[in-house]
Amino acid sequence: METTKLLKNAATLVALVREKTPLIHHLTNYVTVNDCANIVLACGGSPIMADEINEVEEVIALASAVILNIGTLNQRTLESMLAAGKKANELGVPVILDPAGAGATTFRTDSCHLLLENVDLAVIRGNASEIKAVGGLEATTLGVDVAPEDLLSEANLASGKTIVQSLAHKFNCVVAMTGEVDLISHGKKTYALNNGHPWLAGITGTGCMCSSLIGTYSGITTNYLEAALTGVMVLSIAGEIAAEEIKAGMATFRTKLIDQVSLLEPQVLLERGKIREL
Amino acid sequence: METTKLLKNAATLVALVREKTPLIHHLTNYVTVNDCANIVLACGGSPIMADEINEVEEVIALASAVILNIGTLNQRTLESMLAAGKKANELGVPVILDPAGAGATTFRTDSCHLLLENVDLAVIRGNASEIKAVGGLEATTLGVDVAPEDLLSEANLASGKTIVQSLAHKFNCVVAMTGEVDLISHGKKTYALNNGHPWLAGITGTGCMCSSLIGTYSGITTNYLEAALTGVMVLSIAGEIAAEEIKAGMATFRTKLIDQVSLLEPQVLLERGKIREL
Amino acid sequence: METTKLLKNAATLVALVREKTPLIHHLTNYVTVNDCANIVLACGGSPIMADEINEVEEVIALASAVILNIGTLNQRTLESMLAAGKKANELGVPVILDPAGAGATTFRTDSCHLLLENVDLAVIRGNASEIKAVGGLEATTLGVDVAPEDLLSEANLASGKTIVQSLAHKFNCVVAMTGEVDLISHGKKTYALNNGHPWLAGITGTGCMCSSLIGTYSGITTNYLEAALTGVMVLSIAGEIAAEEIKAGMATFRTKLIDQVSLLEPQVLLERGKIREL
Repeated sequence: METTKLLKNAATLVALVREKTPLIHHLTNYVTVNDCANIVLACGGSPIMADEINEVEEVIALASAVILNIGTLNQRTLESMLAAGKKANELGVPVILDPAGAGATTFRTDSCHLLLENVDLAVIRGNASEIKAVGGLEATTLGVDVAPEDLLSEANLASGKTIVQSLAHKFNCVVAMTGEVDLISHGKKTYALNNGHPWLAGITGTGCMCSSLIGTYSGITTNYLEAALTGVMVLSIAGEIAAEEIKAGMATFRTKLIDQVSLLEPQVLLERGKIREL
Repeated sequence: METTKLLKNAATLVALVREKTPLIHHLTNYVTVNDCANIVLACGGSPIMADEINEVEEVIALASAVILNIGTLNQRTLESMLAAGKKANELGVPVILDPAGAGATTFRTDSCHLLLENVDLAVIRGNASEIKAVGGLEATTLGVDVAPEDLLSEANLASGKTIVQSLAHKFNCVVAMTGEVDLISHGKKTYALNNGHPWLAGITGTGCMCSSLIGTYSGITTNYLEAALTGVMVLSIAGEIAAEEIKAGMATFRTKLIDQVSLLEPQVLLERGKIREL
Repeated sequence: METTKLLKNAATLVALVREKTPLIHHLTNYVTVNDCANIVLACGGSPIMADEINEVEEVIALASAVILNIGTLNQRTLESMLAAGKKANELGVPVILDPAGAGATTFRTDSCHLLLENVDLAVIRGNASEIKAVGGLEATTLGVDVAPEDLLSEANLASGKTIVQSLAHKFNCVVAMTGEVDLISHGKKTYALNNGHPWLAGITGTGCMCSSLIGTYSGITTNYLEAALTGVMVLSIAGEIAAEEIKAGMATFRTKLIDQVSLLEPQVLLERGKIREL
């Protein structure tokens, strides 16, 4: 079974990252940056956040992967992201783009396109509204949360598959569109993941943390499809276990979510992972 | 009883915000921004943080309210706040000012005055030192925490009432001066709220979270007095319940505080709300 | 016993800071800033974060100590740190430098040297890699976490002692090199501390929080050696107690760590403090 093999490979990455402790460079927003640092540590990586243009290239030279997250982008940090992304391409360091809020403003959408024109990506991860905006499709972004009409569910998987596949082809990278169901594609094959819990939408930063996890696993493999599948599954399964542990309360859920990433045993992915090829 | 009606209306807003999910734009500090995002989600809104001048006007056009919090203001973000505030006025989007640390430095006090001259506010929320500084009164700000000699309590409610009423008149907005007792006025009437817990002063961000809650309720009503009363009561009552739940520990209290906002049932405001007209 | 006297003095500082509530100015990174604010509140101080060059000198005039933490330094905030540091020297306000990530990039190392040339410090606190980089010694910084080959342990205390003593002499300040064992020196005497728990390396911000605690105690004494010993012990002992309280989970550990700082009774330092002169 190919999906069983994917789950086994994901479990291997979960174990391996704890041995390798890859340094993961972030140029990210100031809202969820602490959660991103803690989730990278929790899964076994070492985070570094640096956005000064005079140092980003040197940090890239030390890093195993870099995450460009536009959540609170400004002109200064956009320049730094471009410099970091170009250097990463030069050195073969994988680049993950989180187009947080793309589609909400011209500045964010244009910045994504500027990054896509100048930087080769390993993975793009966003919600359905953001992925549509990046792809130049009509989306209804209402901020950083997905618009209700863009919500991905079992009912519209076929259109979702078309979107992620065409985007993956267009930009020659892995595309992860996360939501109630997660779709992950590298253009040829597309997978649907059915793990997770509704509470993951009740706290800020779960999308950003997911991108940071994908970045961390991308730091130890060149198979970015598997890195993306692993990052999405680790967050979703940790969310499931966290939700089972508590009765209620969104801040307690956030604490338990990061706890469960730090405690996750590799074989749990084999037991809980719900993945299928579309 | 008018205060019973106010409590009922507050309970209605608590329920309504979960149906409407208003988008709440923040130009805020990097210290407590994550708490602000999580408290908006916890009460039922959708937060967006954006401070790049090239995008703030577009974000305002999508938003139901905007919070200007000067906690770590700089020249760049001051320009963005001015642009956001003017656009909000043009579009009828309510503006909430949190003058964090006003009075501590000339830059903060002057920036507040610049904002007040250029932007019509729905609500100003600050501690007694900050509110006095905004009003041009002599205050003893010692940072972002209220100065001991400015502390509002049952003993000096009369002078507090004069301050909030005159400020509300002067700027034609609702003024919320929060502390051991909270005073809220729209110039004609002034209310005192007696909910809360001393531990709310033991963690960073409770003032900022209060302003974000006021902003979120201002996003679904044009009665900003009721929005301010609701925001203050939600935080204070959640703080009471959180403190009852635990024995001690300030970080656990913070987690439980946000939990209780996410769990708050509207009728609890009717049971616990302590509000009276002065 | 001199070390018993040091423990007694540390316990006195732990009690005294809760009476004095010193205002602690931070120019710091946006990753761990919320943790720094909460740890200062937890131990009894009052934090203020301000990095706009137009206001830092006025904030210094109100503050009891200032922390310069270069974790996400940029050109703008470097200028503000220089202005704040010079003003602090002029007014006799102690300055604590946290050279987060020094050695990782030329910009960070050069910025530390620029600060050291222009500002007299009370305390420098960093991990072994950072302290070596600040001292111009060969280090293997791999980011903001200490490099494995730089790890300080019982096996290489002698070389660690040489490093901190020479650095303390060179810059005429207290040097705290934290890790599995912590070394603290003011040039003449050097102390080793053996408190703490491995989990402290499993969450982001423990180094930054340690610097903020040192800064807070520096705000109420001119004996910066004792302030540094106290800050390091408070964090380490709170970490020990937190780890004893829970079974596992890194986010829960972080919550309990801050809890235990807020709950720490002075005499616990006498019971648990492990300090010896090298």
